[in-house]
Amino acid sequence: MSGAVIIVGLGPGDAAKVTPEVTAALAEATDVVGYIPYVARVAPREGLTLHPSDNRVELDRATHALEMAAAGARVVVVSSGDPGVFAMASAVFEALEARPDLAHVPITVLPGITAMLAAAAAAGAPLGHDFCAINLSDNLKPFDLVERRLRLAAQADFAMGFYNPRSKSRPHQFARVLQILREECEPGRLVIFARAVSTPEQAIRVVRLIDATEDMADMRTVVLIGNSATRRVGDYVYTPRSA
Amino acid sequence: MSGAVIIVGLGPGDAAKVTPEVTAALAEATDVVGYIPYVARVAPREGLTLHPSDNRVELDRATHALEMAAAGARVVVVSSGDPGVFAMASAVFEALEARPDLAHVPITVLPGITAMLAAAAAAGAPLGHDFCAINLSDNLKPFDLVERRLRLAAQADFAMGFYNPRSKSRPHQFARVLQILREECEPGRLVIFARAVSTPEQAIRVVRLIDATEDMADMRTVVLIGNSATRRVGDYVYTPRSA
Repeated sequence: MSGAVIIVGLGPGDAAKVTPEVTAALAEATDVVGYIPYVARVAPREGLTLHPSDNRVELDRATHALEMAAAGARVVVVSSGDPGVFAMASAVFEALEARPDLAHVPITVLPGITAMLAAAAAAGAPLGHDFCAINLSDNLKPFDLVERRLRLAAQADFAMGFYNPRSKSRPHQFARVLQILREECEPGRLVIFARAVSTPEQAIRVVRLIDATEDMADMRTVVLIGNSATRRVGDYVYTPRSA
Repeated sequence: MSGAVIIVGLGPGDAAKVTPEVTAALAEATDVVGYIPYVARVAPREGLTLHPSDNRVELDRATHALEMAAAGARVVVVSSGDPGVFAMASAVFEALEARPDLAHVPITVLPGITAMLAAAAAAGAPLGHDFCAINLSDNLKPFDLVERRLRLAAQADFAMGFYNPRSKSRPHQFARVLQILREECEPGRLVIFARAVSTPEQAIRVVRLIDATEDMADMRTVVLIGNSATRRVGDYVYTPRSA
């Protein structure tokens, strides 16, 4: 049996941001498992079975990957960005914890360029000093915890990256997030809305916190918040190394 | 004049983690600027001038890159990891701010696999939920600010990644960091010391906070701290998606 699960990050979208080790893992896979739009980024070929699945079935998908690997398959689990950042790696280990009979399956995680860092690069260097990453979705945690982390992160003067700022099922929470930030930060704090980073539809918009509105974010947007020292130089936004 | 500055991330060490766009940028460069050990990772070739420089001269190096680009050179500024995370991108924008006469130089930032995320992948998925990144060096900021961010991050129950935990010039601060964490977190909190990630010398050590000692980190170590829900499954460490 040479079965294995390799959990890989496809980066934010651009093929030129996929690492060679991820490309090699896909070339050797017998099966690819993941959310429909991410599996769609993998070229079909003979000997490779694609298993696209819907959103919100991450645990089922992870268990399926482990089971196929236990039966000898070389399964690549794909995430966009980095698989360890609000993506499939944690789901696979959760599934493993629930299934001690699959504990012998070798698991490897191959990192990728996460959306927050691709967005930062596209804008300049807004995460150039201490920063945090927060998933704004309350699908899996109470919104109270999101609010608590936001306030403490602002008080710590972290720059911030927000994943999943807004979705069809949660249209109004991002307005609440902006309100909390306005209570904790100065009105001129820089906010970056980075949509579809590294794809042909990439759009980077930089506004002051006082001018930010909830409709500036959608499901394809990563939002970056500067710290109190973050500023513009020319068309770029950066955070000094001393802040 | 076709001069430009391209600030790239070489990833944590392994060539298989360098993105194709970074490899392409290096292939087209006339000049490569950076800290000595990172420039040493770029293969010499005809038509390419390497400009290695010492640590702590980041601003001079950045200004030099902008000046060469203004004179028509295609300059690649190399960092390890991601250039936007405690690396050269902020230094270049700081240099640009100080030199309005160089404002016309086109600057591009190409992201890379940052050490924290490579370390997380090597350990499992310890940054699988909200997390923060803190540079523990007080070369450029007061240690009081480090301490304040540490306490607030612990209170927010972020997982954490620490860059520059310990150096020859700051041998004792990391002991103070561990003491602060012990005041804020439970004794069983998981701590990961990830040394020389993705190189042949890679070593991953997982201990409880109560067992962590300052000598477990050195200049080549990234330290990851789990959040209150981070746990082991088999040989892996992961943070559940709900925490």
